[in-house]
Amino acid sequence: MSMHETAPSQFVQVGDAEVAYRRFGRRGAPPLLLLNYFAANMDDWDPKITNGFAAVRDVIILDYPGIGLSSGTTPSTVAAMTRDFACFYRALDLTGFDIIGFSLGGMIAQQLAFEFPDMVRRIILLGTGPRGGEGMTFTELSVDELDDPESLVMLAFFTPSEASKAAGRAYLERLKLRAADRDERVTRHAAIAQLEAIREWGAIPSENRFAVLGNIRQPTLIVHGNKDVVVMPINAFLLAEHLPNAQLIMYPDASHGAQSQHAEIFLEHARLFLSN
Amino acid sequence: MSMHETAPSQFVQVGDAEVAYRRFGRRGAPPLLLLNYFAANMDDWDPKITNGFAAVRDVIILDYPGIGLSSGTTPSTVAAMTRDFACFYRALDLTGFDIIGFSLGGMIAQQLAFEFPDMVRRIILLGTGPRGGEGMTFTELSVDELDDPESLVMLAFFTPSEASKAAGRAYLERLKLRAADRDERVTRHAAIAQLEAIREWGAIPSENRFAVLGNIRQPTLIVHGNKDVVVMPINAFLLAEHLPNAQLIMYPDASHGAQSQHAEIFLEHARLFLSN
Repeated sequence: MSMHETAPSQFVQVGDAEVAYRRFGRRGAPPLLLLNYFAANMDDWDPKITNGFAAVRDVIILDYPGIGLSSGTTPSTVAAMTRDFACFYRALDLTGFDIIGFSLGGMIAQQLAFEFPDMVRRIILLGTGPRGGEGMTFTELSVDELDDPESLVMLAFFTPSEASKAAGRAYLERLKLRAADRDERVTRHAAIAQLEAIREWGAIPSENRFAVLGNIRQPTLIVHGNKDVVVMPINAFLLAEHLPNAQLIMYPDASHGAQSQHAEIFLEHARLFLSN
Repeated sequence: MSMHETAPSQFVQVGDAEVAYRRFGRRGAPPLLLLNYFAANMDDWDPKITNGFAAVRDVIILDYPGIGLSSGTTPSTVAAMTRDFACFYRALDLTGFDIIGFSLGGMIAQQLAFEFPDMVRRIILLGTGPRGGEGMTFTELSVDELDDPESLVMLAFFTPSEASKAAGRAYLERLKLRAADRDERVTRHAAIAQLEAIREWGAIPSENRFAVLGNIRQPTLIVHGNKDVVVMPINAFLLAEHLPNAQLIMYPDASHGAQSQHAEIFLEHARLFLSN
């Protein structure tokens, strides 16, 4: 069975872009699509998580248009990214799939469930927040921080505790497990467009702040770190309050990389959720 | 194996009181002690939950002094209830146990972990909040509401949705499964003392509001309904934020009886937590 480390990068034509993706795990099981975070390419998924799911599911990861190995242009709104993603799964002829969206990917997952409610079966939202959430315009974040990606991961994904820092170092080592057919680094230009999209998503609307959430009927699992310094934990609570059918799980001493720090229990929780 | 429906009521001398308890399930497994909510006796535990745990654990439920079949006086502070409870488990010679505290019982569980940190292994907090939490002085609650207990359960433990109301009716039926050796109803006098204790716990201190939580080192699982009308869901979030080692799980469309409405998944989550 192919895995995170060995699955070949493949390409599919989506509009003007050749979109890169990798597909591995248990073919025939319902597809599980993973939507990535800000300035991340396919190599930035934690193999412990992707392989954990691949043991029981047909896992698909991708580079959004303009990111990593994908050609094309990175749009500057979540809505446009969502339309790109809809073209991607149509090009692969996928239906009845589940989605895991991490941070920016969780925004796209929400928008997808809202615009194309019949396509998605179940949703897992990792370290993300609702449109117009709390502190989600990221005014202090700059693409300059991407110049030292390992430092950024340690600061943003893990807490200052010894246990969390050790989990962070192990995580960084796991990201190197895939040796051949590596992805391309995300360009500054693409990161700037993604940041613009995130900020537009995070702006608080003048009315009906969380109205969209009431229309997302899919069973949803929200997973968050209780010390997330990127997307404040209160955003997970707001999602749980306003989504009609969402379970929230929050892990201790964990920041934006909560699902990697607590990977064993997260995989148990996610499998329970996906199989019920 | 004895179960919720058949376990005999037993008694143990605790200070001046004869404390009633029932013990059932898998003897030899680590004891699991269940601490009850406001104005509840042993018959008010959901058999689906107690028997779910009893399949794998040595389950002990009790009536606090002055409640139900227990003689003695109900104290009017959580601290005094906690000392009573410490005398109870010493009288039964219990060590290295886990605790599930529901609402008022969760307050006692926190106080116990703070005052007697070596006694408790793991803690599950159901529908409860920290000392000085949000909206926890229950100014609208009156013991008069206890005159119609089934209505109170439907209003307080379940939401107005059809799914939740159906779960509520099933829950009320389950409470009748135990036919013989029923408990005694909680007196108005005892309920008034418990309400006073809850209100004292809920008063917001002038400083160091959540300082106690930093000292509770036990692995803790917080379980709450996202629409709890008794203990507002934000209190579960505050616990998860301030306890050093707590996992939070919040269930959808659920009020104060979240763990009964979502009993199957709650039992899975609790067993995962207790066995890790």
